[in-house]
Amino acid sequence: MHKVAFIGLGRMGLPMARLLLKAGFAVTVFNRTRAKGELLAAEGATVADTAAAAVEAGGIVVTMLANDVALKTIADDVIAKLGKGGLHISMSTVSPETSRELAARHAAAGSDFVAAPVFGRPEAAAAKLLRICVSGASGAIDRARPLLEAMGQSIHEFGAEVGAANVQKLVGNFMILSAVEAMAEAFALGEKNGLDRKAMNAFFSETIFACPIYQNYGRIAAERAYQPPGFAMPLGMKDLRLVRDVAEESRVPMPLADLLHARLLTALAKGREDYDWTAIELSSAEDAGLR
Amino acid sequence: MHKVAFIGLGRMGLPMARLLLKAGFAVTVFNRTRAKGELLAAEGATVADTAAAAVEAGGIVVTMLANDVALKTIADDVIAKLGKGGLHISMSTVSPETSRELAARHAAAGSDFVAAPVFGRPEAAAAKLLRICVSGASGAIDRARPLLEAMGQSIHEFGAEVGAANVQKLVGNFMILSAVEAMAEAFALGEKNGLDRKAMNAFFSETIFACPIYQNYGRIAAERAYQPPGFAMPLGMKDLRLVRDVAEESRVPMPLADLLHARLLTALAKGREDYDWTAIELSSAEDAGLR
Amino acid sequence: MHKVAFIGLGRMGLPMARLLLKAGFAVTVFNRTRAKGELLAAEGATVADTAAAAVEAGGIVVTMLANDVALKTIADDVIAKLGKGGLHISMSTVSPETSRELAARHAAAGSDFVAAPVFGRPEAAAAKLLRICVSGASGAIDRARPLLEAMGQSIHEFGAEVGAANVQKLVGNFMILSAVEAMAEAFALGEKNGLDRKAMNAFFSETIFACPIYQNYGRIAAERAYQPPGFAMPLGMKDLRLVRDVAEESRVPMPLADLLHARLLTALAKGREDYDWTAIELSSAEDAGLR
Amino acid sequence: MHKVAFIGLGRMGLPMARLLLKAGFAVTVFNRTRAKGELLAAEGATVADTAAAAVEAGGIVVTMLANDVALKTIADDVIAKLGKGGLHISMSTVSPETSRELAARHAAAGSDFVAAPVFGRPEAAAAKLLRICVSGASGAIDRARPLLEAMGQSIHEFGAEVGAANVQKLVGNFMILSAVEAMAEAFALGEKNGLDRKAMNAFFSETIFACPIYQNYGRIAAERAYQPPGFAMPLGMKDLRLVRDVAEESRVPMPLADLLHARLLTALAKGREDYDWTAIELSSAEDAGLR
Repeated sequence: MHKVAFIGLGRMGLPMARLLLKAGFAVTVFNRTRAKGELLAAEGATVADTAAAAVEAGGIVVTMLANDVALKTIADDVIAKLGKGGLHISMSTVSPETSRELAARHAAAGSDFVAAPVFGRPEAAAAKLLRICVSGASGAIDRARPLLEAMGQSIHEFGAEVGAANVQKLVGNFMILSAVEAMAEAFALGEKNGLDRKAMNAFFSETIFACPIYQNYGRIAAERAYQPPGFAMPLGMKDLRLVRDVAEESRVPMPLADLLHARLLTALAKGREDYDWTAIELSSAEDAGLR
Repeated sequence: MHKVAFIGLGRMGLPMARLLLKAGFAVTVFNRTRAKGELLAAEGATVADTAAAAVEAGGIVVTMLANDVALKTIADDVIAKLGKGGLHISMSTVSPETSRELAARHAAAGSDFVAAPVFGRPEAAAAKLLRICVSGASGAIDRARPLLEAMGQSIHEFGAEVGAANVQKLVGNFMILSAVEAMAEAFALGEKNGLDRKAMNAFFSETIFACPIYQNYGRIAAERAYQPPGFAMPLGMKDLRLVRDVAEESRVPMPLADLLHARLLTALAKGREDYDWTAIELSSAEDAGLR
Repeated sequence: MHKVAFIGLGRMGLPMARLLLKAGFAVTVFNRTRAKGELLAAEGATVADTAAAAVEAGGIVVTMLANDVALKTIADDVIAKLGKGGLHISMSTVSPETSRELAARHAAAGSDFVAAPVFGRPEAAAAKLLRICVSGASGAIDRARPLLEAMGQSIHEFGAEVGAANVQKLVGNFMILSAVEAMAEAFALGEKNGLDRKAMNAFFSETIFACPIYQNYGRIAAERAYQPPGFAMPLGMKDLRLVRDVAEESRVPMPLADLLHARLLTALAKGREDYDWTAIELSSAEDAGLR
Repeated sequence: MHKVAFIGLGRMGLPMARLLLKAGFAVTVFNRTRAKGELLAAEGATVADTAAAAVEAGGIVVTMLANDVALKTIADDVIAKLGKGGLHISMSTVSPETSRELAARHAAAGSDFVAAPVFGRPEAAAAKLLRICVSGASGAIDRARPLLEAMGQSIHEFGAEVGAANVQKLVGNFMILSAVEAMAEAFALGEKNGLDRKAMNAFFSETIFACPIYQNYGRIAAERAYQPPGFAMPLGMKDLRLVRDVAEESRVPMPLADLLHARLLTALAKGREDYDWTAIELSSAEDAGLR
């Protein structure tokens, strides 16, 4: 079995790499701050000093990085080292454009590229509960599948157009924040009419909206449990910006995405960088004179 | 056991009255068009010719009518006839203001009033799957409970302020249409990037949004199954108007509710009266040049 | 010359009635609080104790009241007293629907009705600088014209459909507040980039936006001269509500009107009842973290 | 007198360079397509083959280019050639960030940079009616002033922060399109209520909105004179994108700018690239079912 390079050991990458180790893959890890890699050494990982050193020619590389720039920064080394027959499984939340660009560069170098972004917070990653969306050439997806199955509870294919899974991931985050905004306005109206926001949320999350997003985010919003953040405001801003960029390039007006972006901007302008992104809810309360 | 009067045998009222009959209640029904009542005669219902004739002094009246005006229209007769010791269970989707006004008038006449609006479409009503929100004096709710339990799968109390359940119902409908708008924008963006809207919906409705609203409305929107309507556009408009009215009176800005209202207006302006309200989705597609 | 009845001596009505007196009309005034009428007695007005007492059969009545309800409240008496050959010049800012309804009732009683709402603040009224929009039967407008010319600097006809002038007035107020919102967002962006809002406004109001609205409201917004109000927040809310009502009835989505309405609601929720409506500007500043 | 280099002879640059020639400046012009330059040769201009060739060491360069990228593309050559004592007058509509970046690079090379964007269409440029906003070091502005006075009817200073004039220009374009949106919604409401859009516009542009923007754009919108475009849709999109970029960086939520951006996207999605940007008006009409 080829060794697997895993690049990016942040809050998501670390538990994901650990799952690969647990599943028996030989994993070489690389992270900008080496200490994160050392955490996995005791569990069997080899720790590399550079991205290039982690990659084996013709092998498989998994990347889980903070954003498009971070991914592009290591891409040169990865593509050069990987060479013919290699496979890059890109799991970061990035723009479809970045995936298309990297896939083309990989193709030119004889290697494959699949986009495989994930839904789920760090706790979900640790519990192997991630939902993984994947797109790219079907042969490449087949090759990636054993690794993806080691890291998530379900794998969802979105076809050969390599950016498709990224679009699905981005609109998913957009839909999550849309649900938050809906709850925010609903709770504000309820509260001003004497209802208890926890009771409101209990009803919805047990009945017509009995699904993870409303249950998690509804609880966070009802209790205003914004610190420490599960998904911090600037990360939400990054994703909504990507949604708006894709929307502009695709010529798709998205007024609800614009509303959410304005809410995030307001939160940042008011100094809420280290709040969970659910805290956009505060805008509805403040505009209603509730705070 | 007192006889129960059931007023309003529309698409919701008819299956609800039937559940009361099945549960063994003696039910006298009244509907503006008598034919609807006759349908239940074979199942044991008594059919009255007027609202007043259906009501027994000191008894229980259930109303399930189209809107605030329809409810207020029969209220005079109901209140007069019901008198001391009576109970009015108001299950229509109306404004909290109407409930507060009727509750006051009932109190003046010595009778009780509870608001008990429901979530669920006609099929859900027939299958005893409605979710019932209820508010009012706790003694009155206790008295209403056996009937509510005969008609729904769960009963959710929202306290003594009689309009509270109406607010919960209205914001619920607002949240449902918010989910539709989120899917509409997401699907438009996906489609312009080569994704299949059914595949997009399948992922969401099986994973992070695996709950009735996203499953039902996601399917309707993905398949554009807008006719015949499950919940027609003008009904959606009525409910969003009520949301906006309460928001204005309560001084709660709701930009997302405004967006949904504009979507409904567009659909009506384009002649989609007899489409399911999910068809607000078409605006996103049209504005993106997809149709 | 017939005597003219003038009903409603508020901040606008008083200077308007005075202009009629100055122009030589015999005017009988009526106001709910009689003291206002007494102010004009010294200038030649007759003061009546009731609306009906002010009106002469077959004569002319001018009304300038706070809203639709106030106008409808006195309408019964006016129509009854005026009778055949009378003319009602309705100058209040009301809905086109109210004008249509009153015109029909006047027609049934043999009298005429024209809608003649005005643009301009009390100072403009005093200086005979009002702009008057008028709609109704052309014969009735001809009969009204000498009075209108005594009260405004220009008269603008909008045809025989009696509600037309009201629509023009309402969209005018909508356009004014739209200009305020545009300036508010522009000033917030400028201020956060180090520009001076007064300098920004000076440029616009001297060049491409050198017209009364931008000059007046730009100055108010740049200086935040919100108290005492020239046009108080609740009046703005009343007019935007009318705009939204007409939009809903006409099936015209107006997202900008919705934005303005939300701004007004926010201002009211934050306790700014006695601010000039230009103070919706504060929302942009607050959401940008500038206050 | 130093020779002046003028780079960029598009629809705006050409008439502006001509004004410099008329005012007696010795002008060397450069344009990517040389033919544009030849047009001015007969009027006394020297035509250069490269940007660098047009620039004189220590002299003055005026640039009027399509966007940030075009400006940055020629900036290397300009800065290198201009050297100590030179002055760059940048008149393009670009982001304040670009101005700040270029000003820093000029400073490092010993030359000065002022931002001097303009308001006005090509006809206004030809008639010396442009309004010029300028920011930068006061000494540099003083040196630029004779040229600016030769090209515009008025010069407006916005201080030493070099990006300030760009912000003023961008928010100005935002305010212009805001006025268009306000008229669009107003006209749609009017039209559905039987008013004539030309009559509506005539009133506004002669009275409370009697200023160039409402007069020009009101006429274009009332007559739907969208082709040929005075300012084409993609140019409007470019400017609104810059507004949104600055807003995001500055953390200033601008919901009205978002609405305008969505309108532009809709127009582009519907294939209206070669329409005047005023044609965002069509969205209001279409959503109201008027087309």
